Amino acid sequence: MGLRDEILEQPSAVGRLLADPDDQVARVARRVLDRGVRMVFLAARGSSDNAGLYAKYLWGAFNSLPVAQAAPSLFTVYRRPPAIADSLVVAISQSGQSPDITSVVREGRRQGALTLAITNDVESPLAKASELVIDITAGPELAVAATKTYTTELVAIAMLSAALSEDPGRREWLARTPELIAQALTLDAPARTAAERHLAMAHCSVLGRGFNYATAFEWALKLKELAHVIAEPFSPADFEHGPVALAQEGFPVLAIVPAGPMAEVSVPLLRRLVEERHVELLLISNDEAALALAGTPLRLAPDLPEWLSPIVAIVPAQLLCYHLARARGLDTEDPLGLTKVTRTL
Amino acid sequence: MGLRDEILEQPSAVGRLLADPDDQVARVARRVLDRGVRMVFLAARGSSDNAGLYAKYLWGAFNSLPVAQAAPSLFTVYRRPPAIADSLVVAISQSGQSPDITSVVREGRRQGALTLAITNDVESPLAKASELVIDITAGPELAVAATKTYTTELVAIAMLSAALSEDPGRREWLARTPELIAQALTLDAPARTAAERHLAMAHCSVLGRGFNYATAFEWALKLKELAHVIAEPFSPADFEHGPVALAQEGFPVLAIVPAGPMAEVSVPLLRRLVEERHVELLLISNDEAALALAGTPLRLAPDLPEWLSPIVAIVPAQLLCYHLARARGLDTEDPLGLTKVTRTL
Repeated sequence: MGLRDEILEQPSAVGRLLADPDDQVARVARRVLDRGVRMVFLAARGSSDNAGLYAKYLWGAFNSLPVAQAAPSLFTVYRRPPAIADSLVVAISQSGQSPDITSVVREGRRQGALTLAITNDVESPLAKASELVIDITAGPELAVAATKTYTTELVAIAMLSAALSEDPGRREWLARTPELIAQALTLDAPARTAAERHLAMAHCSVLGRGFNYATAFEWALKLKELAHVIAEPFSPADFEHGPVALAQEGFPVLAIVPAGPMAEVSVPLLRRLVEERHVELLLISNDEAALALAGTPLRLAPDLPEWLSPIVAIVPAQLLCYHLARARGLDTEDPLGLTKVTRTL
Repeated sequence: MGLRDEILEQPSAVGRLLADPDDQVARVARRVLDRGVRMVFLAARGSSDNAGLYAKYLWGAFNSLPVAQAAPSLFTVYRRPPAIADSLVVAISQSGQSPDITSVVREGRRQGALTLAITNDVESPLAKASELVIDITAGPELAVAATKTYTTELVAIAMLSAALSEDPGRREWLARTPELIAQALTLDAPARTAAERHLAMAHCSVLGRGFNYATAFEWALKLKELAHVIAEPFSPADFEHGPVALAQEGFPVLAIVPAGPMAEVSVPLLRRLVEERHVELLLISNDEAALALAGTPLRLAPDLPEWLSPIVAIVPAQLLCYHLARARGLDTEDPLGLTKVTRTL
């Protein structure tokens, strides 16, 4: 078992979570609705924090819930936590082992807030500290870089959203995610070709906005962890407020722009970047106008709804990072190189 | 008038705001207290969004207020805004011209929320859309890169915090900020020397956490805008979860670590970065243990309280970016180069 197996396993991991034999998500949704929660206070780090960005947009758009991302140091270092008794306190952590994330849940519970852990380990300190738990049932993840735990966290977030708004249409789409992810896995060969084409990439910007702001952050993190690319994520709206200064001819811009309302506002920026600044655009999309601009297109299924797209769009991004790491001779399983010398970029 | 003048003008700009002849901050604080607001919903972009990070930590730590950062696209692109009637909706914008930020305030007001604009233009669309306004009175800012409007935004945030908690001790410290900023401006010569030493810097990581998470983001943005350095901000806690893979021998790590609770937890990480990974550490600090580790130290006043330090610590960072841009022959006033060819890194 290794990183590649964990990437390929995602349809079955997501399918297991969706089957939800204990009806765990429905029970959590009932508790949240009974409590009449009006805001979410969310604590997470790393890939789970990126999953939290999806929650911010999805729960904001479909459940009217404003989502505040916790500043864990207020709880641990400064010991001056904010008042969160009215909130649903949500912690997302694959391992459930991070003491600062658990501190946020403990303090929330002490104040009387409803607390929920989304985790892959129901025996973890985090799960034990939380009143409610959603087990993402991804199975053991051995590679350091999170893949199947990230996608199952996204699915848990989307399942809770659909349960809270009793939305059968979104539930039906969610039921199709194993098949949609399996379809995205067929981008393995194009992702390998893209990796070969970008073998020398030392730095890049990763653009995504709205539901796929999460995907931009997660792709950038995978690029750093696995392929040692200096990759910084941006909303295209923020990118134009300064960082665009870096986008010279040939500068690699990676973007996730699925068809939908966000593509309509993002395509003009992509066009300016390509036609005026001559950046090298590597694009994950199913929007024809956007795909036409890309030097390296990675094509998603045509009918994917934008709200669901982050669960699927991260898959070719994972494959690209895997192939880039392999092509560069890097360790895909324990890429931090904490005890060994790693390549200088 | 240019960028350098605007940097040097900061003590007087901040002094003007603190004098507060119309008692504007006290009036805003009374309205917020009367309303019994229990959370803040905050909208901003660019440097103002970085100022918002300071609000998140300061208002969380001293006023018990959880702060949610708005996702403007929920209001503008998706037209599915969350329910924010219970929140204090705060928009921060120097110009007050950004339509998406104004949309968040308009929607907040439509829902019945108390709304506040922190802006340098009380005649702007944003100020007109908001029920309450704090005028940062920074005077015209002509350089594209924000400097004095950033520091005055921070001071407005801190003044409101002190007014909300009726804290005379913090008010006294705030009254001293013009003098503390003037003292930080004496780092001009060391900042120029540091810029010469790092003239070839193409990329770097910028570390700050807690109150100075804002400073890390703002420093990184200034490095990108002014000096075309690929600079990415991190909390040291997140940096160790992956991006540390990039920190090879000689990799430039810039950090803001003033003495206080955060220095105690951050110094061991800095030590590992310097002693085990041999990074090149450029440090803004008044913590002796931290300063001893830095190849390039920029020394802050010894008695600066950590909660106040972001207002002062950004000043040597601005000076460094100014000198780096000058030494590289870049345009310090309109550095985006939207109509002219800019240097390739």
